[in-house]
Amino acid sequence: MTSWRVVSIHHVAVARGEDAIGEALFEQLLGSVVHEEPGVGFVERMYPAGDAFVQVLEAQGPGVVQRSLDRRGPGLHHVAFGVEGLDAALDELDARGVALIDRHARPGGMGTRIAFLHPSAAGGVLVELVETAAGGADDG
Amino acid sequence: MTSWRVVSIHHVAVARGEDAIGEALFEQLLGSVVHEEPGVGFVERMYPAGDAFVQVLEAQGPGVVQRSLDRRGPGLHHVAFGVEGLDAALDELDARGVALIDRHARPGGMGTRIAFLHPSAAGGVLVELVETAAGGADDG
Repeated sequence: MTSWRVVSIHHVAVARGEDAIGEALFEQLLGSVVHEEPGVGFVERMYPAGDAFVQVLEAQGPGVVQRSLDRRGPGLHHVAFGVEGLDAALDELDARGVALIDRHARPGGMGTRIAFLHPSAAGGVLVELVETAAGGADDG
Repeated sequence: MTSWRVVSIHHVAVARGEDAIGEALFEQLLGSVVHEEPGVGFVERMYPAGDAFVQVLEAQGPGVVQRSLDRRGPGLHHVAFGVEGLDAALDELDARGVALIDRHARPGGMGTRIAFLHPSAAGGVLVELVETAAGGADDG
């Protein structure tokens, strides 16, 4: 089976509410936004934490971020691992019966390829796998 | 003012429930536990993710982990940033009126010094600051 491995925590994502205080704290701790990108019903902003990022998700309308805010309120949303060999990882996880949201990688922010695992696979944690252009190692 | 900076995401912590499936997935993705340590009413186990860790928190009785499980169920619990200059960071955050759980650093796992910020300071996210023996850079 083709090899794959997790090489980093690529980012930790936070669903922000109306209150700007949380995002202001991340900016104070981490410095200025290094990347901003729209999604479907939300915008994501990346703050640098060494080679990793905090990704602030702000709802702009109906969508996954607003649904998460409605259900659980603001706070931690998901963790994303940097992976080398994403396609091999997904094939192996799928073959082992791990519940996947994305069985095949799709384009993510910052030129990455991504896939989400279902929270039921990880004890209630939404897990994202990210492969960067460099093949999984952080190049941010 | 003495300088300080965030140098990494040191770990992401997960409160696990009765179900072992989530921890089994982290072991599958990340490999074997590299450190285990008891806390008050819980045990923490560290799984490696590059230079960072996933910290699985398992309740062993009454305490902060069980309270979190009772309130919010299993899932992401907090994010910990590696910091150089932890004492200076806490002094500055306190002076700026940021709500701190720990105004002064205390001993953490793996020989670190740690402090928690209050979730109200970070938009519902429980944030930990960690200074390693190497002065903040990951040495795990």
